Amino acid sequence: MRRTAEVLAAELARIGMEHVELIEVALPGGQTGHPLVLADWLHAPGKPTVLCYGHYDVQPPDPLDEWHTPPFEPSERDGNLYARGAVDDKGQMYMHVKALESLFAAGGGQLPLNVRVLLEGEEEVGGESIAAFLRSHPEKVEADFALVSDTEMFAPDLPTLCVGLRGMIYTEVEVRGARTDLHSGMYGGAAPNPFFALAQIIAQLKDQDGRILIPGIYDGLQAPSTDELAAWARLPFDEVHYLATEIGATSLVGEPGYSVMERTWARPTLEIHGMPGGFIGAGAKTVIPARATAKLSMRLVPPMEPMTTFARLKEYIESLTPKGVSVEVRLIHAGEAAVIGTDNPYIQAAVAALKQIWQVEPVFVRSGGSIPVVGDFERCLGIPSVMMGFGLPDDNLHAPNEKFNIRNFHLGIETLIVFFEALGAEHNAAGFGVAG
Amino acid sequence: MRRTAEVLAAELARIGMEHVELIEVALPGGQTGHPLVLADWLHAPGKPTVLCYGHYDVQPPDPLDEWHTPPFEPSERDGNLYARGAVDDKGQMYMHVKALESLFAAGGGQLPLNVRVLLEGEEEVGGESIAAFLRSHPEKVEADFALVSDTEMFAPDLPTLCVGLRGMIYTEVEVRGARTDLHSGMYGGAAPNPFFALAQIIAQLKDQDGRILIPGIYDGLQAPSTDELAAWARLPFDEVHYLATEIGATSLVGEPGYSVMERTWARPTLEIHGMPGGFIGAGAKTVIPARATAKLSMRLVPPMEPMTTFARLKEYIESLTPKGVSVEVRLIHAGEAAVIGTDNPYIQAAVAALKQIWQVEPVFVRSGGSIPVVGDFERCLGIPSVMMGFGLPDDNLHAPNEKFNIRNFHLGIETLIVFFEALGAEHNAAGFGVAG
Repeated sequence: MRRTAEVLAAELARIGMEHVELIEVALPGGQTGHPLVLADWLHAPGKPTVLCYGHYDVQPPDPLDEWHTPPFEPSERDGNLYARGAVDDKGQMYMHVKALESLFAAGGGQLPLNVRVLLEGEEEVGGESIAAFLRSHPEKVEADFALVSDTEMFAPDLPTLCVGLRGMIYTEVEVRGARTDLHSGMYGGAAPNPFFALAQIIAQLKDQDGRILIPGIYDGLQAPSTDELAAWARLPFDEVHYLATEIGATSLVGEPGYSVMERTWARPTLEIHGMPGGFIGAGAKTVIPARATAKLSMRLVPPMEPMTTFARLKEYIESLTPKGVSVEVRLIHAGEAAVIGTDNPYIQAAVAALKQIWQVEPVFVRSGGSIPVVGDFERCLGIPSVMMGFGLPDDNLHAPNEKFNIRNFHLGIETLIVFFEALGAEHNAAGFGVAG
Repeated sequence: MRRTAEVLAAELARIGMEHVELIEVALPGGQTGHPLVLADWLHAPGKPTVLCYGHYDVQPPDPLDEWHTPPFEPSERDGNLYARGAVDDKGQMYMHVKALESLFAAGGGQLPLNVRVLLEGEEEVGGESIAAFLRSHPEKVEADFALVSDTEMFAPDLPTLCVGLRGMIYTEVEVRGARTDLHSGMYGGAAPNPFFALAQIIAQLKDQDGRILIPGIYDGLQAPSTDELAAWARLPFDEVHYLATEIGATSLVGEPGYSVMERTWARPTLEIHGMPGGFIGAGAKTVIPARATAKLSMRLVPPMEPMTTFARLKEYIESLTPKGVSVEVRLIHAGEAAVIGTDNPYIQAAVAALKQIWQVEPVFVRSGGSIPVVGDFERCLGIPSVMMGFGLPDDNLHAPNEKFNIRNFHLGIETLIVFFEALGAEHNAAGFGVAG
């Protein structure tokens, strides 16, 4: 992680960025996480300031045996670059670096606008360092808007701006039965089985249709506007094609009465990611494990508040605790949902740049994923985010064989160059605010 | 495994056993498993022949971090030897070797009865090699009875003969959803989650009280006799103490209306041992896994037939398959239940030997565990088994910190010496059968 941060710092210095530093944030408990990479170039007086955000951490690569080429040896095939982090978010983050490099070169060492770069190494694990840094040192990242390229396009060749993100809570539900692992022959029929208890609990968290059964969980949810729903209905989306190409299951699931877009962008969901405990090797071990855990997360939509949601989940799970076991529900990390207005000048400039390079009218979508830092930019810095990403729906984010389309990488860089140039050139006319 | 088999073969040859050989059994599919160790000493004409059985394979040692000393470095503490296999079954198997060594030494190279030794390395994984060998070469292990020391005493200082074993089926239930792992932010609300499907299935296999819901599963079960139930009721058993010392959970579970002995010895049970799939590392990975599996076993009681039971389980699970996923139920291994009569002369001689050494009237119990080879001895060789073991209920079989009480090890050897001597001396008077 540190080597990656150092490489990025060196790259930023090489292209012309200034005040490049690695920042280790002291976290509660006296530990430090992975370093933030901070840099700036602020010699465009009267021009707006962009805060370029990206993250250099990635998801774990397992299951390793499903990768066609090693996850940490980038491999080019069929116009794509395959590697863990290719699109999420190393590759997209690197588009910012290359766009700035090009602008420095074209401008004789000058940029058309003021730029700050802030990169983190903990996006996939809760982003504790960047959240603490934004709270304690907002003056070091003062800007007019943030640029976040950690989202995807709705379809190939369809430029897309993301204006809504789900929040999340990631938890562990640990069930404890006997004091130690027991032989299922000797004790089966008398000793509680934590996996059975977990199955009983989990089966009561959602109904057969996927509707969440936690009391109060749907209270007061903000439905998308009629306009937004109408725009979503016009998106090029074929549910049969989506099922066949992106999901590959026998059928889709989810709450009846909502479209796929509504279910994945504007409704809360609850998923199980893994169930550590007991025996998971090949063959047969007849153990009644002392403990079993479910890794359980929920995606949240406005106005669901992470801590309130966690409290509701925890209380409900505790109320379901079967006989013979105890249950502990732990919060691993949390992030708030965000819905961003489309009427600010930065979003409008992004629309124009996308249209110019891609020659197609861009669309506004939401994402079912979570980028908690977007909420932090809003709360700590008071600035909106432009979420302009160039990933594709079949890029295998968080999965084996993650990839980034190389043409999208190049067009993304061109879009960013045009976007930055326009913001610098049009500043006086458009009346953009000035940082500071 | 092979080194262990070779060590045992060398030990048997050293003490005086003859025709010591390692036997690799050709299995279906052309593979071989772990070698059987076979030896004999057949120079006591007119005397009975004992087939000493044991197994040198052990359960996997994980979770490793719960062992106080390394599982494969035997460690003596407080009168116990701690190691994986200390009691199940390396230590108990070694009692046979030491008893025979003592008898060879005392008899000037002669034993009081005929002895065959048959050791296997696959007891914990289904015993395919020994089952195939018993079917194809019964003449190589012709004997009057088998001696199996792979059971435990009901309580410390209470000599115990086991006369009933549960059968088992060990299965894997694999649920497949999407083609590949998916990001829970992007696809949560649309893609099926195999862990959720498994939880829904498992929660419908037993009710809240632990009663199995598979249709027909309890049809025609043989209840223990009134005498046997009365004897079990007289055993020194304190449910509060059992819960506190052996289980260590908040309460016991299991079918209402049955005692702990009935539930663990004479009723079928169903357990989940582990649920491989998805992400089980530390921290947070937001994956909807393509596949998840439950390792599921059932313990069977007469007259439940393993293949019929598996078919019922499979059919029921398939009928529960939730929307969006497919389910595969695989049989890993199976063994039949066995209930042994107490009226044969070998059991009676074992009772006398136990009483002489331990100075206490022995008890007859069943075991909730499964020793499939006991059924094979009955079916292939037509001989009964004497299940005389010296483990204790808190020996942590199949769990971290497995141990064997060293005093029990020594008294067990003495009991076997007296048992073998009595069988040899009393043969003519008692009218034991002669092998061959």
